[in-house]
Amino acid sequence: MGKSRLEAFSDGVLAIIITIMVLELKVPHGAEATALVPLLPVFLSYVLSFVYIGIYWNNHHHMLHTVRKVSGGILWANLHLLFWLSLFPVSTGWMGENQFAPLPTAFYGVVLLMAAIAYWLLQRTIIASQGVDSLLARAIGKDVKGKLSPLCYALAIPLAFLSPWLANLLYVLVALIWLVPDRRIERLLTD
Amino acid sequence: MGKSRLEAFSDGVLAIIITIMVLELKVPHGAEATALVPLLPVFLSYVLSFVYIGIYWNNHHHMLHTVRKVSGGILWANLHLLFWLSLFPVSTGWMGENQFAPLPTAFYGVVLLMAAIAYWLLQRTIIASQGVDSLLARAIGKDVKGKLSPLCYALAIPLAFLSPWLANLLYVLVALIWLVPDRRIERLLTD
Amino acid sequence: MGKSRLEAFSDGVLAIIITIMVLELKVPHGAEATALVPLLPVFLSYVLSFVYIGIYWNNHHHMLHTVRKVSGGILWANLHLLFWLSLFPVSTGWMGENQFAPLPTAFYGVVLLMAAIAYWLLQRTIIASQGVDSLLARAIGKDVKGKLSPLCYALAIPLAFLSPWLANLLYVLVALIWLVPDRRIERLLTD
Amino acid sequence: MGKSRLEAFSDGVLAIIITIMVLELKVPHGAEATALVPLLPVFLSYVLSFVYIGIYWNNHHHMLHTVRKVSGGILWANLHLLFWLSLFPVSTGWMGENQFAPLPTAFYGVVLLMAAIAYWLLQRTIIASQGVDSLLARAIGKDVKGKLSPLCYALAIPLAFLSPWLANLLYVLVALIWLVPDRRIERLLTD
Repeated sequence: MGKSRLEAFSDGVLAIIITIMVLELKVPHGAEATALVPLLPVFLSYVLSFVYIGIYWNNHHHMLHTVRKVSGGILWANLHLLFWLSLFPVSTGWMGENQFAPLPTAFYGVVLLMAAIAYWLLQRTIIASQGVDSLLARAIGKDVKGKLSPLCYALAIPLAFLSPWLANLLYVLVALIWLVPDRRIERLLTD
Repeated sequence: MGKSRLEAFSDGVLAIIITIMVLELKVPHGAEATALVPLLPVFLSYVLSFVYIGIYWNNHHHMLHTVRKVSGGILWANLHLLFWLSLFPVSTGWMGENQFAPLPTAFYGVVLLMAAIAYWLLQRTIIASQGVDSLLARAIGKDVKGKLSPLCYALAIPLAFLSPWLANLLYVLVALIWLVPDRRIERLLTD
Repeated sequence: MGKSRLEAFSDGVLAIIITIMVLELKVPHGAEATALVPLLPVFLSYVLSFVYIGIYWNNHHHMLHTVRKVSGGILWANLHLLFWLSLFPVSTGWMGENQFAPLPTAFYGVVLLMAAIAYWLLQRTIIASQGVDSLLARAIGKDVKGKLSPLCYALAIPLAFLSPWLANLLYVLVALIWLVPDRRIERLLTD
Repeated sequence: MGKSRLEAFSDGVLAIIITIMVLELKVPHGAEATALVPLLPVFLSYVLSFVYIGIYWNNHHHMLHTVRKVSGGILWANLHLLFWLSLFPVSTGWMGENQFAPLPTAFYGVVLLMAAIAYWLLQRTIIASQGVDSLLARAIGKDVKGKLSPLCYALAIPLAFLSPWLANLLYVLVALIWLVPDRRIERLLTD
């Protein structure tokens, strides 16, 4: 089975997730400037989630480059990742509409954590089907970022109840370390 | 006529169906934990439907692999299947928002049943255009799963009025027997 | 410029239109059978529009098969068609929620008429860029269906104020004469 | 890394943006003609935004034709453009629902301006990765339209507070000068 339909379906789902998140930015009631004020936290949470989905799409893109044969296990590990990513719009909206309150901020961290675990599982499934000497296994190496991120999320979840702003700072920091594109796979492909 | 646009269109519709289902998970009012409680049944019904759409996408993917020429009949049988799958979001939302009440649970079963019949019709249409010795005809063989599933749905629909939980258990069981990927077509393609 | 992105974009828009129409089927309030009653006209109008979008996708698919070079004119004629098709969800919802009242039924006819005119314009633009002896020009021939349909819509619009049911009957009849797939292009391609 | 997935993802996001804008055209309450009146400004703003997204898709299409290798910078410059375009539905709805009031009209101009800047940044990023003698650099030449448009938006934003109608006239004028398809790239590719 080829991977083109897997890519097309994942692209479709990610494109829809990134776009329906904007539906949480409800059209304000009234035409005055004060009508925009309650939208500000929703807008900030939208920017954060937009960047996260962008990072996932980017890295997903690179990872699938190394796949040749799509097995049933890869299909379901991929759907599992898409499932957790599909919870971004509702958790983003909940956090934004409550001005980054503790529980919604912690909940957002849970969704980030589960998506990170699902990504790691997909990575494991691909490597398992390709052998430990595979392109992907060599490309990710020690996978420092991939191991650091879930740790940060796991730390941020309880932290959200003490200081939601510190938790959100952690989410932003993790996004920033991923924004540097994952050149490892690109480099190996060039070699 | 090639099948690539048929695949692309079906992928698009399935990607949108699987993603707009999440819109039924409305952003909770209030930032406290109790605001999440009414979302739990909606979340559970979302998980069930996500798995079902994933199964349909997976098997649809395999089935279309065996198609070479797309006839008008195949196009319309495919649209007919997409029609019933497009009713998943509303029936999922109705069942979840009413905590798996009898009538919404039975209605969900009707949509599952109609989608199963539509899938079977599409399968028949493809085999009819390819001949009884076709790859697909040999691949599905006796098609035990394909015959068992509508029977289970037909049983679950009246059962929902006696015990919605038993009906939902049946839906989960059918999903589980399909989660095992349909290796028959893969195996035949390899031979 | 190739036509693959034009097809992909059109497929995407049509897949989204056909799927967001289902969002007008609002999750009913209450779990009893009477909660489904107001949904019936919305459901019927959804079925009609689903079939119409299916017909457009089908014929659009055939028509673009005959295109080799995509000009700026074709791009904009195609976007113009997509614009009118994008008004299907709102006009379908309006007609369904008002139990096929006169004005919404007439409005639905206006959208059908404008989409038919836009389709005809796209056809003209493609033929103009290919010459009168082109594959498409020969394939559509006298284009009886293409000329009859806008006439029926134009007739149904005033008729809707006398009898909305007769107008809707006309919409169904036109859909039925198009459901027969347009084999003219298929036949010519085979020759 | 190839550009086909970048195109597919961008097409998906643009197709969804252009289609969910229509969700702001809410189904009117009531079946009489007066129910349509408040929809008129929403409809007009929808037409304007539809044309703008069409122009962006069209030019994006041409620009990516000149790209051979997709770098990380291009990926993120493209996502940045999609981010600002994703704000079209909410700003369109806000302007339409408030009958082109000053602040929403100015806000719409801000979104147009940011999208124009993002488009220009993407153009710069592509040229930077290809060299100043690249196809794209020669194709855009002095890029009069690309420099004039942000100036017009920057002018229209303060103007909206004096006369929203003049500001909207400017938006329409800029759209009209872009509607003429960008034949420069087509011409160069033909040479």
